[in-house]
Amino acid sequence: MSLIVEFETHDVRFPTSLLLDGSDAMNPDPDYSAAYVRIATDAGDGLEGHAFVFTIGRGNDVQVAAIDALAPYLVGQNAEEVLADLGGMWRRLQHDSQLRWLGPEKGVMHMAIGAVVNALWDLRAKREGKPLWRLLAELSPEELVDLVDFRYLSDALTRDEALELLRAAEPGRAERIALIEADGYPAYTTTPGWLGYSDEKLARLSREAVADGFRQIKLKVGASLDDDLRRLRIAREAVGPDIRIAVDANQRWDVSDAIEWMRALASFDIAWIEEPTSPDDVLGHAAIARAIAPIPVTTGEHCANRIMFKQFLQARALEVLQIDYTRVAGVNENIAILLLAAKFGVRVCPHAGGVGLCEGVQHLAMFDFVAVSGTLDGRMIEFVDHLHEHFVTPTVVRGGRYLAPSAPGAGTEMRAESIAEYEFRGARADA
Amino acid sequence: MSLIVEFETHDVRFPTSLLLDGSDAMNPDPDYSAAYVRIATDAGDGLEGHAFVFTIGRGNDVQVAAIDALAPYLVGQNAEEVLADLGGMWRRLQHDSQLRWLGPEKGVMHMAIGAVVNALWDLRAKREGKPLWRLLAELSPEELVDLVDFRYLSDALTRDEALELLRAAEPGRAERIALIEADGYPAYTTTPGWLGYSDEKLARLSREAVADGFRQIKLKVGASLDDDLRRLRIAREAVGPDIRIAVDANQRWDVSDAIEWMRALASFDIAWIEEPTSPDDVLGHAAIARAIAPIPVTTGEHCANRIMFKQFLQARALEVLQIDYTRVAGVNENIAILLLAAKFGVRVCPHAGGVGLCEGVQHLAMFDFVAVSGTLDGRMIEFVDHLHEHFVTPTVVRGGRYLAPSAPGAGTEMRAESIAEYEFRGARADA
Repeated sequence: MSLIVEFETHDVRFPTSLLLDGSDAMNPDPDYSAAYVRIATDAGDGLEGHAFVFTIGRGNDVQVAAIDALAPYLVGQNAEEVLADLGGMWRRLQHDSQLRWLGPEKGVMHMAIGAVVNALWDLRAKREGKPLWRLLAELSPEELVDLVDFRYLSDALTRDEALELLRAAEPGRAERIALIEADGYPAYTTTPGWLGYSDEKLARLSREAVADGFRQIKLKVGASLDDDLRRLRIAREAVGPDIRIAVDANQRWDVSDAIEWMRALASFDIAWIEEPTSPDDVLGHAAIARAIAPIPVTTGEHCANRIMFKQFLQARALEVLQIDYTRVAGVNENIAILLLAAKFGVRVCPHAGGVGLCEGVQHLAMFDFVAVSGTLDGRMIEFVDHLHEHFVTPTVVRGGRYLAPSAPGAGTEMRAESIAEYEFRGARADA
Repeated sequence: MSLIVEFETHDVRFPTSLLLDGSDAMNPDPDYSAAYVRIATDAGDGLEGHAFVFTIGRGNDVQVAAIDALAPYLVGQNAEEVLADLGGMWRRLQHDSQLRWLGPEKGVMHMAIGAVVNALWDLRAKREGKPLWRLLAELSPEELVDLVDFRYLSDALTRDEALELLRAAEPGRAERIALIEADGYPAYTTTPGWLGYSDEKLARLSREAVADGFRQIKLKVGASLDDDLRRLRIAREAVGPDIRIAVDANQRWDVSDAIEWMRALASFDIAWIEEPTSPDDVLGHAAIARAIAPIPVTTGEHCANRIMFKQFLQARALEVLQIDYTRVAGVNENIAILLLAAKFGVRVCPHAGGVGLCEGVQHLAMFDFVAVSGTLDGRMIEFVDHLHEHFVTPTVVRGGRYLAPSAPGAGTEMRAESIAEYEFRGARADA
C-alpha cells in the first residue's frame, strides 16, 4: 500500500491578453491561467496526479487557495483505497458540511473539488496504464453509477435508469473503442473567430480551418451587430456553404436582445448560438430557444453543476449541451451530466480551448461515445490551437479530428518547465 | 476629499459547533464565522466601513482570500466619488472580466463582492449619520434604480418598471418611517428548533419564544421523519394553536422525498417549508410547491444571485422569498431582489441568524417596508439569539420585534476585542 504524501499547488498564468487570443464580448483581455494541483504518493513508482482549474487571470490565486483547503482530505490517505472508490471521495469532498456553505456546489469551491478529483483520476489512469477515456470506457455500468451522486437528480434520472442506459450501451463498446482509436473524434475550431482579430485574419484563419479538415467554425458575436454581420459575411464567403458556422455571445445579452440579434443573423445559416445570456438563466434560455427555433441554443461552459444542467434539459432550454472539464466537480459530475444528456436525447459538444481544456475533455467525449451515448451524430469537441505545447502529452488534432490519446493518464499534466516559467509572482506592470 | 487607504481582512471563527447551536440536517457542526473586511480612509473622521461574509467554518480563509483579491479596486480611490456612486462601483466589481470567470456571479467571488460593497454602505451610512435602512429609505426612486444592474433581469423587470414601483411607494414613506421607529419590524425565531437540541430544550425554548412575544417559530427537519413528527407534536403542544410553526429542511431532500415528507407533516399546520431541496433547483421547487399546496415553499439563503431569484419568481417556485445579507453581491443586489419580489407580489421574510446576519438584514427589511413594498403583511425577519454581543451596535429584539436601529451605519461592525479573540490561527485540535 502507498500513502498520498504530497499535495502541491501552483498559480500558473500565461500572458495571453497581450495577443488578444481568446477575446470575446465579455472577456476582452483574458490571461489564460491554471490553478494547478499535483498529488504524489510514496509508492516510489514516479506516478503523480495532475489537474487544474482553468481561469482567465485575476483571482487564480483565490482558486488556488480553494484547492489548498482540500489538502486535508488527501494527505496521509491510503492511495489504493482512495483510487478504488472515487465516488466515495467525491461525496466526502462535496458534502463537507462547512465547505459546502461556500457554494453550495458552485463557483470557486466547487471547481476546486473538480481539480482534486481530476488529479486523482489522472493518477489512477496512470497507475492502470490507460488513457482516462479508455479506463472509463472499460468500467462496468455498476462501477460507473457508483461514481455518480444522484442527489437532486432523481426527478429526472434515477440510479436504476442510469444503469439501464449504460447496460443498453454495453454491446458494441469494443467496436467503438476500435473506431475511436482508428479515426479519432470530430472537432470544430474557434481559432478564426475571436473578436480581437482583424477581418483579414478572420478570413485567412477561416480558410485555413477548412483546409485543415474542420467542418465547423465558431465566431464570437455580441459586441456590435454591424460588426457581426460583416464578420459573418466574411467567414461565410471564406468557408463556403457546406461548412457550419456557429456563433457565441458569451452571455452578452438579455433575453429580448438575444432574440432580436439572432433573428438578424439567422440568414447566415447559424449552426448554433452559444451562451446567449446568463448561464444561470434556464428559463431565459428556454424562451430564447422557443423564439429563434430552429437555430439551436447551446450553453454549459459556465453551467455550475449537474442540477443546473438537469433543469436546462427539463425546460428544453438547450439543444446542444457543452460540458467543460474544470467548471464542475470533476470527472464524476461530468459523468452525471453525460448520463442526463443521454436520458434527454441531447447531443454533447464539449467546450474546450483555454489552457488544457482540450487535453482533458477529449477523454470524456470519447468515453461518452464508447459507453454512454454510443453515437457521434452531430457531435464534436471544440478545438483551439494554443498553449498545447505546455503539456506533457498534448492533444493531437489532425484532419479536423481529435486523435485518441494513448498515453496513460488524463492528459492534464503540464510540463515542469512551463509551470516554473509561468508561475505567477505578483501583478504584471500592465495589470 | 479623502482617499481609501486601508483595506484589512480577518478570518474570524466562533467555535459554535461545541454547543450544537445551528445544527440542522445538512450542517451538523457549524463554526459560525466571518470573512471580515475593514475599510478606512485618510479623512481623519474616525469613520470606517465594516462588513463580512458569513460562513460556517472551514473555507473561511478561502473567502478571505477572495475579498483580498478586490483590494486593488478600492485602495487609493477617492472615497467621496466611490461612495456617491455605489452603483458604479458595484458594476466595476461585478464586471471585472477576469474575476467574473470564477462565478460568474455566484459562490466565493460573488460573496466577496458583497462584503466589499456592504463595507462601503456601512461607511457611507456612518458618514451621513444615519442607520442604513433610513439612508436607503430616503434615497429617491432614481437614485435607487441607479444602484441596480438590470442586466439579465429585463425579461422580468425593467428599469422603468422598477422606477414606477418605487414612485408608487413614495407617498407614505414618512409615516412608515415613523411606524418602524415606533414599533419596529416583526421577527420570528429559530432558537428552539435546532436538530441537536433535546426534546426538553425544544419544549422549553418554544414556550419561552411565545412568552417573548414571537408569533412564529421554526424547526429544523429532514433527518428522521419519526423525530420530526415527535418534535412537531412537542412544539405544537408547547406553543398552542395560534403560533405559526415553520419547518426548514436545509436542502436535505430530492423532489419526491420533499413531497412525501411534507404530506406526512401537513397535519401540523405548517407555516412554510424552507429549502426543501437544492437551492439551485428552480423547477424542483416549483414541482414541490404545486404538489404540497397550500403549504408555502420558501428559499433564498443559498440563492446565488438575482438571476436565480428571478426564475424562482417566474416559475412560481416560492411563495415566500428569503433574502440574505451576505450571500449575494451586497446591498445593491438585494435591492434588485426586493424589487423583483415587489413586482411579483411575493412577501419577503429575510434569513438571519449565523453571526451578524440579523444586524445587517434588518436594514433591508425596514427599507423594503418604507420604500418598496410598503407592507408588513405576513412579513417577518428571522431571529436567533446568539453572538450579538460581538457587535458594536447589536440587534435589539423586544416583544417579538426588531427595534429600528438608530446608530449610523449598517450594524455590521464587530467589536475589535471579538475580532482579536476569535481571529483564526490554524486548525482546532478537534477539527
